Amino acid sequence: MQKPRQKKERVTMDEDRRNLIVERLQMSPFHQWLGLELADCGEGWVEIAMPWRDELISSPEPPTLHGGISASLIDMAGLSALRAAGVTPVGTIYMHADYHRAGRPGPLLARSEVVRAGRSMGIADTRVSQDGKLIASGRGGYRIKSD
Amino acid sequence: MQKPRQKKERVTMDEDRRNLIVERLQMSPFHQWLGLELADCGEGWVEIAMPWRDELISSPEPPTLHGGISASLIDMAGLSALRAAGVTPVGTIYMHADYHRAGRPGPLLARSEVVRAGRSMGIADTRVSQDGKLIASGRGGYRIKSD
Amino acid sequence: MQKPRQKKERVTMDEDRRNLIVERLQMSPFHQWLGLELADCGEGWVEIAMPWRDELISSPEPPTLHGGISASLIDMAGLSALRAAGVTPVGTIYMHADYHRAGRPGPLLARSEVVRAGRSMGIADTRVSQDGKLIASGRGGYRIKSD
Amino acid sequence: MQKPRQKKERVTMDEDRRNLIVERLQMSPFHQWLGLELADCGEGWVEIAMPWRDELISSPEPPTLHGGISASLIDMAGLSALRAAGVTPVGTIYMHADYHRAGRPGPLLARSEVVRAGRSMGIADTRVSQDGKLIASGRGGYRIKSD
Repeated sequence: MQKPRQKKERVTMDEDRRNLIVERLQMSPFHQWLGLELADCGEGWVEIAMPWRDELISSPEPPTLHGGISASLIDMAGLSALRAAGVTPVGTIYMHADYHRAGRPGPLLARSEVVRAGRSMGIADTRVSQDGKLIASGRGGYRIKSD
Repeated sequence: MQKPRQKKERVTMDEDRRNLIVERLQMSPFHQWLGLELADCGEGWVEIAMPWRDELISSPEPPTLHGGISASLIDMAGLSALRAAGVTPVGTIYMHADYHRAGRPGPLLARSEVVRAGRSMGIADTRVSQDGKLIASGRGGYRIKSD
Repeated sequence: MQKPRQKKERVTMDEDRRNLIVERLQMSPFHQWLGLELADCGEGWVEIAMPWRDELISSPEPPTLHGGISASLIDMAGLSALRAAGVTPVGTIYMHADYHRAGRPGPLLARSEVVRAGRSMGIADTRVSQDGKLIASGRGGYRIKSD
Repeated sequence: MQKPRQKKERVTMDEDRRNLIVERLQMSPFHQWLGLELADCGEGWVEIAMPWRDELISSPEPPTLHGGISASLIDMAGLSALRAAGVTPVGTIYMHADYHRAGRPGPLLARSEVVRAGRSMGIADTRVSQDGKLIASGRGGYRIKSD
């Protein structure tokens, strides 16, 4: 999932900003438990990878991913996307998630893009996929720290 | 949190229905990990209690509850409320959560009430509180199994 | 926004606050076109009545109410409910509407209750009914003017 | 809903499908009152243009667009986008709108894209803009008629 970044020149994004996203992602015990990793990022977007673990199962037969986990990914990926846009989100105001398909045991990828980064509020749209198929999508609204 | 049910006569709810809610709540590994318990229920509503665990922390200083956990509670409590209304939810269609106040380390209570239980879709509103204060609220829409 | 309470009789709500709700409701040309009227109100809640007009029809055979009108009612009733809670909403941040049943030609009633009126944001839940039946329900989040 | 593709030239979209979108758009008295027109469309997306009229004003000084109108555009553009994907939406299940900027007197454009067109439910994301600036965006979920 990790795309190589071999060139020093022509970076699409500030290295400090990327480091901040990773740091904030990993400082959360819940994110650590989920095993979240920044797979890729650019101006106003991120891709977050999540491995599987059996505690994420909602209904056991057949095993399906709990909707609360997709919701957590949408919440958190949107927050990271705003950091990737250079603003400082300080909390989630609301979150909306649509469930398209049952998630199955296996890694997940959440791709989030900023819709709008205003002075006091930011919004990002996120799509959660598995094996290239969309399983959930949604949007988060976040409080932005004004400078 | 558990309210005594000492009287045999005059039950507000079918015992089988209550048992089914508890069984479905506990059959999910994610719910087991969260430690969810049915605190109370009645026709079309439930109260779900959740203990604290440090893996739920979002931001460490000061420790706050991850928004994905409140979202999980809203998702799952709404599903249980529909069972408490005597219908059979078979999956979440969408979920919306609003965050009112930062959750802190400590137990949580989610109270969910059915807004509408139709033939093919059901909707329930949920409020998540801590120490009697509302920390999040939201709504889930669920697919209903028609008989 | 000063709230004198000069009357001895037990008023359920400040008369100035009620007048302000009505004034704001009627100053909007869209509300005038819709014919909105404050049917009742109390601390943190309002009921708004809307008559029928044929331009509100979505699909003609059989005639059904356009979903955008229910959405407008949810948006506006929530804003009025916040005024009824004594705060000053200055704009809608977001709005969510669920459609439960097709609306038919005939008057509508929207009842809205404040979920939370914070310093910078307020939330209200609204139910739109017709002939006593719930046809739509939803929630609005509003920016609050801090004093 | 038969989809003949008799033309050799590279058409971006079936003419019948386009005609159906226009027909459905214009058969609604509320859409006629709003003056909605199909500006452009392709596989799974539409652009709907809306002229200005003074009855759409929310707050008069300075005049701003009523949020219920943006919500109506999001609802209806999403429905049209699903038609542009070749499915038959038969009603809105829910709608979510975020307001980014106050709309001003002047024409509006809503661009909607299908997120998912399933067997029983479809979802489309819509952005409403004015003078090239995003003023609102949101999502609708729709019941799909299965063949």
